[in-house]
Amino acid sequence: MNVNGRHYRTIWLADDGWSVDIIDQTKFPHVFETARLGTPEEAAAAIRDMLVRGAPLIGVTAAYGVALAMKQDASDAALAGAYELLVKTRPTAINLRWALDEMMRVLKPLSEGERAAAAYRRAAEIAEEDVAINQAIGRNGFEIIRSIAARKPPGERVNILTHCNAGWLATVDWGTATAPIYTAHDSGVGVHVWVDETRPRNQGASLTAWELLHHGVPHTVIPDNTGGHLMQHGLVDIAIVGTDRTTAQGDVCNKIGTYLKALAAHDNGVPFYVALPSPTIDFRVVDGIREIPIEQRGGHEVSHMTGRTADGRIETVEITPRGSKVANYAFDVTPARYVTGLITERGVIAANRDAIGEAFPERLAEAQ
Amino acid sequence: MNVNGRHYRTIWLADDGWSVDIIDQTKFPHVFETARLGTPEEAAAAIRDMLVRGAPLIGVTAAYGVALAMKQDASDAALAGAYELLVKTRPTAINLRWALDEMMRVLKPLSEGERAAAAYRRAAEIAEEDVAINQAIGRNGFEIIRSIAARKPPGERVNILTHCNAGWLATVDWGTATAPIYTAHDSGVGVHVWVDETRPRNQGASLTAWELLHHGVPHTVIPDNTGGHLMQHGLVDIAIVGTDRTTAQGDVCNKIGTYLKALAAHDNGVPFYVALPSPTIDFRVVDGIREIPIEQRGGHEVSHMTGRTADGRIETVEITPRGSKVANYAFDVTPARYVTGLITERGVIAANRDAIGEAFPERLAEAQ
Repeated sequence: MNVNGRHYRTIWLADDGWSVDIIDQTKFPHVFETARLGTPEEAAAAIRDMLVRGAPLIGVTAAYGVALAMKQDASDAALAGAYELLVKTRPTAINLRWALDEMMRVLKPLSEGERAAAAYRRAAEIAEEDVAINQAIGRNGFEIIRSIAARKPPGERVNILTHCNAGWLATVDWGTATAPIYTAHDSGVGVHVWVDETRPRNQGASLTAWELLHHGVPHTVIPDNTGGHLMQHGLVDIAIVGTDRTTAQGDVCNKIGTYLKALAAHDNGVPFYVALPSPTIDFRVVDGIREIPIEQRGGHEVSHMTGRTADGRIETVEITPRGSKVANYAFDVTPARYVTGLITERGVIAANRDAIGEAFPERLAEAQ
Repeated sequence: MNVNGRHYRTIWLADDGWSVDIIDQTKFPHVFETARLGTPEEAAAAIRDMLVRGAPLIGVTAAYGVALAMKQDASDAALAGAYELLVKTRPTAINLRWALDEMMRVLKPLSEGERAAAAYRRAAEIAEEDVAINQAIGRNGFEIIRSIAARKPPGERVNILTHCNAGWLATVDWGTATAPIYTAHDSGVGVHVWVDETRPRNQGASLTAWELLHHGVPHTVIPDNTGGHLMQHGLVDIAIVGTDRTTAQGDVCNKIGTYLKALAAHDNGVPFYVALPSPTIDFRVVDGIREIPIEQRGGHEVSHMTGRTADGRIETVEITPRGSKVANYAFDVTPARYVTGLITERGVIAANRDAIGEAFPERLAEAQ
């Protein structure tokens, strides 16, 4: 999407034709910088140190990391070494392993002379596949926004609430939950986004707000506590969130706090949609609350906050009393009964086993 | 309650017999300091600059401010001047005006020679009345906690979730939502408190956590997003919150985000109680969502965060992108249907018009 009027993706081939440029996401929301990756080690560091984050983007970065390795040395040993180096960077990221397995599948049978070009080609394809999925989600979700807009008085914007960052910064472009928003905005349908701050890591306040600001989409950052009040007063027309993992029956695992917004949406008759690239459906899991283990992260994310001082320094401050325990559950599960629909690349479907299986029969068959 | 093993109130007569000592709440949670008020101007500054906060405590501080004025000069002009000075400090605080009117009612008919002693006496009584109400709420709420404890396996603590700070720091002692917690803890019933951080002003993380830490009550600070997940997993036995204003039909206006926790409690069968000193019942208001205007505060509270740096300085950092709008709604309204009960100084009652009117017939009559 756009940054200061220029189109960017989160990752792209540099103008030298072989290095890889990325947006350095560690300095958001105060500093916008790009970084150049010239070796697989630099690609691994970019993933590990979270210069890039978001499952799809991590996968693409790893694929390009293999391409950078093949450029240096296309031997079997170098290929295996690059795989090992990159797979260890974020052990729980499903897309990371998938992308590396895919690169291995394509490159292994080739001669050394063919590998570098093939690696760059396949990495670029993986990036394009991500963009295509998100664009399709964008088109499908846009239909919902457009129909809401059609029922509003002329000139009134559609108010959309989102939680965390399921934005283009987590993908190659467009994002998932944000794809319908950008599509509507770019099509001239007026939208305004309520951006949940998303404690404790503040991905809404620091990433989603930054994205929307630079693409020119009207938005307002709110504390996570606010959405229920807004819905009670008719100030939210639709909620759209992303998902890290959705079960076969449509239970949605997403950033902690998503469930509370789904409850408020249900209580106030606000449609609650989940933007769902089909790779995040896990057909092996049915009951999300019982079966999905929720990661607990370090307490430092809760007890400390980083931002910019009045004189421009980046500083971290402690905000809880020393001696108080903190807890940091990273995700929660929204039961399917609170989900109005799943916005997938194949259309908007109901959050239940039949609808999901019908839309993605090959995935269902694969899991059985 | 206790701080480092010693009992404190938030306000008390100094050992010189006429100055007034307070806890300076502006430096929480990192610094504990007391301050001495020797003049009505100092009392006014303590209220205005929020060295003291919380409706009951503001009222008592204002009452002592009048006493300090009478000590200097007990003329009619000085009495009127003290009233004017103090009433302007926090224009929307109901208890502030009530306490000042009460001082005026008592002092006006007296001779100048009698006024100082009478003022100190009445200020002390107002403080004691607050403590007595909170102790009664504590006893009544403790019965609920005790009955939950009796149903748990021996040795398991009762897990209580609270939002914001309805603690002793907002009152003279005990607090409202915290009174049952302190009563249970002091009675040897094991409790553990989930403390909502309470964005954007972080009263949970900075005040409630500090209180519980220093009184020795086990507790864990959590992001506001977390409570729903905890309730889904059986990790919350009861929620107890305070209220700024409760309507005649039992709708509860409280810190923004309270409503979301009430929804989650309802969805998971967790009892949701509101600690309610009867002065906060507003019999002139029935439908809380329609009738109570919600204050919007400055955006700085959302966009900036204050805390302690690693080297011990207190620093404020900006956490949203410059250019992004922010919104800061201070309260929300929880409909009575999500409130299990109101813990009042006259017992635990249902959140409906009949029960409230029956418990407080004189207040109902007064409003009609």
